[in-house]
Amino acid sequence: MDKPTFRQHISSQFNAELEDVRQRVMAMGGLVEQQIIDATSALMSLDAELAEQVSRNDAKINQMEVTIDEECSRILARRQPTASDLRLVYAIIKTITDLERIGDEAGKIGRMAKDLASQERIQENMREVQHLSRQVSQMVRDALDAFARMDVMAALNVARQDREVDREYEALLRQCITFMMEDPRTIRRVMDIIWCVRALERIGDHAKNIAEYVVYFVEGKDIRHLTLEAAEQEIQQR
Amino acid sequence: MDKPTFRQHISSQFNAELEDVRQRVMAMGGLVEQQIIDATSALMSLDAELAEQVSRNDAKINQMEVTIDEECSRILARRQPTASDLRLVYAIIKTITDLERIGDEAGKIGRMAKDLASQERIQENMREVQHLSRQVSQMVRDALDAFARMDVMAALNVARQDREVDREYEALLRQCITFMMEDPRTIRRVMDIIWCVRALERIGDHAKNIAEYVVYFVEGKDIRHLTLEAAEQEIQQR
Repeated sequence: MDKPTFRQHISSQFNAELEDVRQRVMAMGGLVEQQIIDATSALMSLDAELAEQVSRNDAKINQMEVTIDEECSRILARRQPTASDLRLVYAIIKTITDLERIGDEAGKIGRMAKDLASQERIQENMREVQHLSRQVSQMVRDALDAFARMDVMAALNVARQDREVDREYEALLRQCITFMMEDPRTIRRVMDIIWCVRALERIGDHAKNIAEYVVYFVEGKDIRHLTLEAAEQEIQQR
Repeated sequence: MDKPTFRQHISSQFNAELEDVRQRVMAMGGLVEQQIIDATSALMSLDAELAEQVSRNDAKINQMEVTIDEECSRILARRQPTASDLRLVYAIIKTITDLERIGDEAGKIGRMAKDLASQERIQENMREVQHLSRQVSQMVRDALDAFARMDVMAALNVARQDREVDREYEALLRQCITFMMEDPRTIRRVMDIIWCVRALERIGDHAKNIAEYVVYFVEGKDIRHLTLEAAEQEIQQR
């Protein structure tokens, strides 16, 4: 199977186009990552102003997705890429869908932060929520790094992190439920926290998806619906 | 702008390939729709066996997604489609991602049904949950119909239904929270119901996404991040 490289094109113009769209994906990813950090910060400090800013930025992310989609369409129509170039465009088309949805989830956390800012403060669980947020924003960063370097091992590492995130999510959810049972007056507020925790868990899933597209691009193998062990075995067989 | 048609190709083989992949999307959509119905049925009757079957079918849906992705990659590489053919392939690539995620959401409802089957029964809210489920499976059916006929008006109608679904979702969520506050012993079970309601709401969002790809295919316009009113205006300007 052909090994991907960015330097194999006769057309340097085509190279420049691919590099441009790749850069746009990285920029979109950077903004998305910042949104997770800001949304969580707004949640921790119950900062309605920062939460509002997260909402405003979501429109930018949406616009970036539309622009990159148009760019990919144009490249497919004009350049008619094959082999690894085609896989790169394919991976980008899939990646930006997940980035946009990570942006949506960060937006939800922002809305919850705004909602909670007007209510009585909850102290419990918040440290764990922040910890989970750090974990998933790290996952997004690692997935984007793996994408930038087209590094399969780094991508598999992101998939591994998702298991840890799922465990923390389950534990945090159980804590929230116990907390509601002990003090039913907190149910409404804890439900808002639960939605944030859920959004963070979903962000982890999307980061994992992005990592899987990296593997598809580099190896030409679709590992999306394999277990982690099966995926690692597939890749070692190359 | 070129108007899409399936009969404009010199190559009848190419036509056959596009038709084949379109048929596969419809088949995948049909299975996904059945999964929503079965998962909800399992939830209503607390039928652990049917819930188990929903879990098993999810693997089939995942496999369908991988196969259609491979097919689309091959078409892009060999046929190098342009104009409306390219938009069709693009719309298919996006559509199957949403169909797969609808399948995931149905799978979650199946898992909740299994979990609830081993607990004490809850009577409350269940009629409303079933109603919401009917609404969203209708949305999925309508989105697939719009896709099959490439019918923009039908697609916009799906987007309109999503508003109604969101309203019902919000109302149902408020009921669930009230119910937990009135009887905290039900919190664990009601949380399972809440996850199902959330999954149904997400299914509505994915159906709306599919409808938006139909508009993109037919009109060449990306309406994903517009309000419904703005989208309708865009389309009337053609």
